[in-house]
Amino acid sequence: MRWKKISDAVIRRLPLYLRVLDELAADPNVQLISSQELGVRAGVGPALVRKDLAWFGEFGKQGVGYEVRFLRDELRRILNLDSEINVALVGAGSLGIALSRYNQKRRAEDNSFTLNIAALFDSDPKKIGTEIDGVMVYSTEELKEKVTELDIRMAIITVPSESAQKVADALVEAGVKAILNFAPVKIGVPEGVHLASADLSLELQRLAYYLRD
Amino acid sequence: MRWKKISDAVIRRLPLYLRVLDELAADPNVQLISSQELGVRAGVGPALVRKDLAWFGEFGKQGVGYEVRFLRDELRRILNLDSEINVALVGAGSLGIALSRYNQKRRAEDNSFTLNIAALFDSDPKKIGTEIDGVMVYSTEELKEKVTELDIRMAIITVPSESAQKVADALVEAGVKAILNFAPVKIGVPEGVHLASADLSLELQRLAYYLRD
Repeated sequence: MRWKKISDAVIRRLPLYLRVLDELAADPNVQLISSQELGVRAGVGPALVRKDLAWFGEFGKQGVGYEVRFLRDELRRILNLDSEINVALVGAGSLGIALSRYNQKRRAEDNSFTLNIAALFDSDPKKIGTEIDGVMVYSTEELKEKVTELDIRMAIITVPSESAQKVADALVEAGVKAILNFAPVKIGVPEGVHLASADLSLELQRLAYYLRD
Repeated sequence: MRWKKISDAVIRRLPLYLRVLDELAADPNVQLISSQELGVRAGVGPALVRKDLAWFGEFGKQGVGYEVRFLRDELRRILNLDSEINVALVGAGSLGIALSRYNQKRRAEDNSFTLNIAALFDSDPKKIGTEIDGVMVYSTEELKEKVTELDIRMAIITVPSESAQKVADALVEAGVKAILNFAPVKIGVPEGVHLASADLSLELQRLAYYLRD
């Protein structure tokens, strides 16, 4: 199924709703949530909550609200988070290793978290063939082969800026359709591949704006 | 000076423009850039580039474009990046240490990068009083004192979810006005404090949406 016309801004809010619903579902006494309450907890206006969810179907009842577990399951399905997704992480430097560890911790705490960093890739011969916190490090030369073998569908790039585009090209060639890039450089991907930037320096630079007094 | 009504979406794009201008300014043969070219390089439509910049003044000339170094300097000034800003990082775990290292590397490569992680904070007695990659680790108990002493204006939170709100409260009390939160939990801050979330799991969950084929 595709919902072609739905904007990135809508998609960006769905994981926020999912996080709230996951928290609520942990309480067996909670059955329903109003769009008002969901909005407050997710930090989104209630009208926007209703509008966002309406893109995907009729999940709520006027005056009653949303059934928490049903909406959670629907959002998981919409976000493709209803089954395990293997993720490659390219660049096993300190940031890459920290992210891999963070992923494992997240998965240990929350068994509904389906994103799994299944393989690390690096060009350093000293790292290749070792395991870092239980995740195998492969050579970046093996990207294409391992992406197929391990059914990897997403990738995280944590290599230095100068290698980021080359790595992205190799990932695209290997068939990866979604990439999260941490290198502080703009990279290009062909249509049909979704790229998100997690450039931390950009985020900090943006925040600095608000220091004006 | 304040530009009260300018939306976060506009501010979010300014560092993208700045990055392009920094790259261009490195080439002594480049003097001018059109909004078209600036847009393409920043991944933003040219009309939006002109509209965004117009919020802050008249930087370009019709049919001529923008003077690269002048616009770069103006954007730095607007973003408060024309002088050094000390940043505290709370949570010297693997992610925190990786971010601190990333910041140092970034600063070594680019001497115009003014954001400086000047102090780490942690609650682990084994870490407190040590230096990690040249940055001192203080006790989280000392937050208020050190924020004043070191003139810290921004903070990055990389503690576990359950401590994130407590840390944010302490930072706010210490006078920090901008916080980047990496803990996968929604935290609250009072008005006047700017909070950005860098929840990596949300970013990955959002990307998973695009795997649908």
